[in-house]
Amino acid sequence: MSDFSVHTAPSANTTASPTEEAHPAHERASITDGSGLEVPVTRIHLHDSPDDSANEPFEAYRTAGPGGDPLDGLPPFREPWILSRQDSEEYTGRGRHLDDDGRSAVRRGAASDEWRGRRPVPRRAFPGKKVTQMHYARRGVITEEMRYAALREGCDAEKVRAEVAAGRAIIPNNINHPESEPMVIGREFLVKINANIGNSAVTSSIAEEVDKLRWATRWGADTVMDLSTGDDIHTTREWILRNAPVPIGTVPIYQALEKVDGDASALTWEVFRDTVIEQCEQGVDYMTVHAGVLLRHVPLTAERVTGIVSRGGSIMAGWCLAHHQENFLYTHYDELCEIFATYDVAFSLGDGLRPGSIADANDEAQFAELDTLAELTRRAWEHDVQVMVEGPGHIPLHLVRENVERQQELCHGAPFYTLGPLVTDIAPGYDHITSAIGATEIARYGTAMLCYVTPKEHLGLPNREDVRAGVITYKIAAHAADLAKGHPAAQARDDALSKARFEFRWKDQFALALDPETAQAFHDETLPAEPAKTAHFCSMCGPKFCSMRISQDIRDEFGSAEDQRRIVEQGMAAKSREFAAAGGSVYLQPEIPVGPPGAAAES
Amino acid sequence: MSDFSVHTAPSANTTASPTEEAHPAHERASITDGSGLEVPVTRIHLHDSPDDSANEPFEAYRTAGPGGDPLDGLPPFREPWILSRQDSEEYTGRGRHLDDDGRSAVRRGAASDEWRGRRPVPRRAFPGKKVTQMHYARRGVITEEMRYAALREGCDAEKVRAEVAAGRAIIPNNINHPESEPMVIGREFLVKINANIGNSAVTSSIAEEVDKLRWATRWGADTVMDLSTGDDIHTTREWILRNAPVPIGTVPIYQALEKVDGDASALTWEVFRDTVIEQCEQGVDYMTVHAGVLLRHVPLTAERVTGIVSRGGSIMAGWCLAHHQENFLYTHYDELCEIFATYDVAFSLGDGLRPGSIADANDEAQFAELDTLAELTRRAWEHDVQVMVEGPGHIPLHLVRENVERQQELCHGAPFYTLGPLVTDIAPGYDHITSAIGATEIARYGTAMLCYVTPKEHLGLPNREDVRAGVITYKIAAHAADLAKGHPAAQARDDALSKARFEFRWKDQFALALDPETAQAFHDETLPAEPAKTAHFCSMCGPKFCSMRISQDIRDEFGSAEDQRRIVEQGMAAKSREFAAAGGSVYLQPEIPVGPPGAAAES
Repeated sequence: MSDFSVHTAPSANTTASPTEEAHPAHERASITDGSGLEVPVTRIHLHDSPDDSANEPFEAYRTAGPGGDPLDGLPPFREPWILSRQDSEEYTGRGRHLDDDGRSAVRRGAASDEWRGRRPVPRRAFPGKKVTQMHYARRGVITEEMRYAALREGCDAEKVRAEVAAGRAIIPNNINHPESEPMVIGREFLVKINANIGNSAVTSSIAEEVDKLRWATRWGADTVMDLSTGDDIHTTREWILRNAPVPIGTVPIYQALEKVDGDASALTWEVFRDTVIEQCEQGVDYMTVHAGVLLRHVPLTAERVTGIVSRGGSIMAGWCLAHHQENFLYTHYDELCEIFATYDVAFSLGDGLRPGSIADANDEAQFAELDTLAELTRRAWEHDVQVMVEGPGHIPLHLVRENVERQQELCHGAPFYTLGPLVTDIAPGYDHITSAIGATEIARYGTAMLCYVTPKEHLGLPNREDVRAGVITYKIAAHAADLAKGHPAAQARDDALSKARFEFRWKDQFALALDPETAQAFHDETLPAEPAKTAHFCSMCGPKFCSMRISQDIRDEFGSAEDQRRIVEQGMAAKSREFAAAGGSVYLQPEIPVGPPGAAAES
Repeated sequence: MSDFSVHTAPSANTTASPTEEAHPAHERASITDGSGLEVPVTRIHLHDSPDDSANEPFEAYRTAGPGGDPLDGLPPFREPWILSRQDSEEYTGRGRHLDDDGRSAVRRGAASDEWRGRRPVPRRAFPGKKVTQMHYARRGVITEEMRYAALREGCDAEKVRAEVAAGRAIIPNNINHPESEPMVIGREFLVKINANIGNSAVTSSIAEEVDKLRWATRWGADTVMDLSTGDDIHTTREWILRNAPVPIGTVPIYQALEKVDGDASALTWEVFRDTVIEQCEQGVDYMTVHAGVLLRHVPLTAERVTGIVSRGGSIMAGWCLAHHQENFLYTHYDELCEIFATYDVAFSLGDGLRPGSIADANDEAQFAELDTLAELTRRAWEHDVQVMVEGPGHIPLHLVRENVERQQELCHGAPFYTLGPLVTDIAPGYDHITSAIGATEIARYGTAMLCYVTPKEHLGLPNREDVRAGVITYKIAAHAADLAKGHPAAQARDDALSKARFEFRWKDQFALALDPETAQAFHDETLPAEPAKTAHFCSMCGPKFCSMRISQDIRDEFGSAEDQRRIVEQGMAAKSREFAAAGGSVYLQPEIPVGPPGAAAES
């Protein structure tokens, strides 16, 4: 998302090493399709049920990658696949200039670089060739990338190929980012989420950016956007890419603006193109481009309550009016497509005119730009270039569905990638929540990827805990949408966790939670004692008020549904007396000190 | 909601006095309908716009009450209205027994009672009379309570009367709770939220409960349920009622269970009835009664993943099977209606068989009970007793709408009062969010009141910050639903806040936020400096990347939409040069140190 970077604030706490698993019961494992292809999963080990029946480990979709020392980077495991296609070549890239790292790097001189990892030579398609997954898919080729993504989704590889060929899904995988684990973004697949990072001149080092990358993917970010604008911008991106197991997106206009000393009116196509090639050679997988902000659209925003709220959008709008020329991103769009096809970079077509308030939702400016984005989608497809389309923004709940249905129709099913939307403007400090409500609704109707919003939105720089809150909140939205869409695999985790809850397997309940650390910490706050983790009643209510305990005792006392029906049908006074005689084991006294009823009463 | 009480955990922090306003710009004020009737509002004072035009104070719906010393209680301002109707009498109530305060009170002796406030003599309807708002409404009488609620809603009093008469809305107002400020719950009105409190033997004092009441209403709780089960249960409820500006709900079965030493099989109609009368005389405004859990329903839950998750529901299910008798709450329902009509207590018909997991959503047990709740609604209406119906629970998003539409049809529009629902089971620690997603959806389609869920749900005892998070999250859900329903007044606050945001009136943005303290604290974390509060650009992005700043500069440079259209139409190269000559005022350097782009990029 072009306009949502994350910069760890000075206050960021730095608990938890980025390579550590989220929970002791979590193990990095892999599954295979039998052909030798292996994809990583997080294997969650579970305890036996009270009746001693075993509970199979739960295998969860994994985005965290293999970990390892950030100074070494990740292995380029995808390289053999790329080479085997024999349609690309190494070449001498534009080379690295000191000023790629920003003005202060020029003043200061190159940063000391402790990098021990791979220093790749850039690859590009042979002249006249295209190396995009869409190109292969359209020619009926099922690539390893497609098989890999299909195995993660638990679907047939041909389905992935067909969706990519039709433009309804993308696999963002620059051939210069062979470290990345292929994944697919499309409405037919699991809803994905993006987290934004990016350095700040004042607050973070290169290593901290890699740590943020790992922190976000540990909690489940499917892609990460690097929106750095501070010092060492080129080197920071290099470290991020060499350590990224997920696709990396950027907004090249930010670095381009740095190159012209922040004077947007001095921006030119040439400066922008050079920046794009620099990033293509590094391995950026998708780029936000605000090519849909046309000169004629700008006046449509003049009477808005909040004007233009996209940074890229406002910069290009100012440029257009200042020069009284059409947006150079639009006039040079086909050249951009040719460059992207040479590396397999996907477009993320920026919605520069999205509404920034409820009052501006679904207005003429927003939909005029969407019409242009539909045209740009079609033109990119003519070059076999993969495309996703960015969406709002601030939209009241009853207008959300129209956004995705209109985009899907106009853009012929190209994946929609939305920011929330926020369903109200009145809760700064809680916009991860206002936006998750809209995000679940828009994903339910077909949005393929959601860009997270953190609690600091509109107010400040997210710290580590804000990043976690944003990622987990968006995992909730994405998963709730998968359930609502009836994704065949989605409910398995809900069922496993609820079974653990009903059987008082507290530790399994924590292990299966999206955020095991927080779940356990909350339980410890009330009942730190170890016995509480095996207590056969709700630790908040005590056995007397524990509905699940009583429920289970009813089953123990009165048997199956069939038995219970018999009790109901026949007058079983004897059974009733028996039960009373049994001393009402339903109402045993607490075995450990417990709190009052309530709070977690559903347990 | 019967199963969600809040007990401040020992870790509770106790910042912020309960009577203090949420923000310095907030003032307790009142509005009048001209007839002398006054209703309280929170008046939010705003600064002028940059163009020196004034911004009228914003008047927000207020639930916080007048405050004052908890030992004195609130003035019984509604008493004259009740007396003027000449249909009720004072009488010698059942009196207060020490064991009303629980077994340990009996062991310990009466708690020292510093109470300085009113010690009311209970009132009841004259023999054969009914004093319910529904009774008056059906006879065409518009009461002061109806006019008061209408003024808060900004609607016509006749509309309130008509909705109450039809049973589509309720005004919970026990004649023994004259301190409460009347409010209306119904699908035609603003969506309301409930917060639960209740003492814990181990953690809180009577005064702390009053503090929790004020803390919840300060943030916007429209009603509060006291689910106490600890010591001094009667006295605690008395203090809460005498200090409550909002309607108070309870679940009498909890106190009844205390009276039989926690042995549910020893519960009887007589014990329950006595407890209900005790609470009616104190002034409880609505009571959760699990009269819909019938003997024949219990077997329908035997194959569920999570069985029965309502405490009241599981207790009555166990009682029914143990005694092999029909639920005494059902068999004595008409007597209960007669009691409620004598004081104007409203039913909150408990959904004892609601699903506790995604797997159990919308199943036979749940809907069988709903059919019974519809019958009980009709029977209560025959007694002119007000009714709302409680709802789930755990429901995947695509099945949520069916719940409210089915309830509204079967129960002829009786207000629906739901708990969330939670749209996934996999995020313990974040269930205020999983439930707010479902709450917004169900409120959008007609649910009248939402019972909050805190982050500690399923795990532990909420502390003060959890209560705040729960209330604010539910205010978001209720407001987002009001916007989606097109409530005429709802968008005014969004527009006021967005205008403040676009004009960089940071302090006004905080003051208009649902939680001004948190909004300002987040801003301070990044930019504590006072200048930042008046900075004319996004403090996170700096002027160079501040879309709103650029947006405004575009308006300054290029004028109105009309002017801009002219620029677009005519080739205005000159204008373009001028702008360049103007030195790109769009891109002024920061006046204060700023962070990198992003984070709050929409600002």
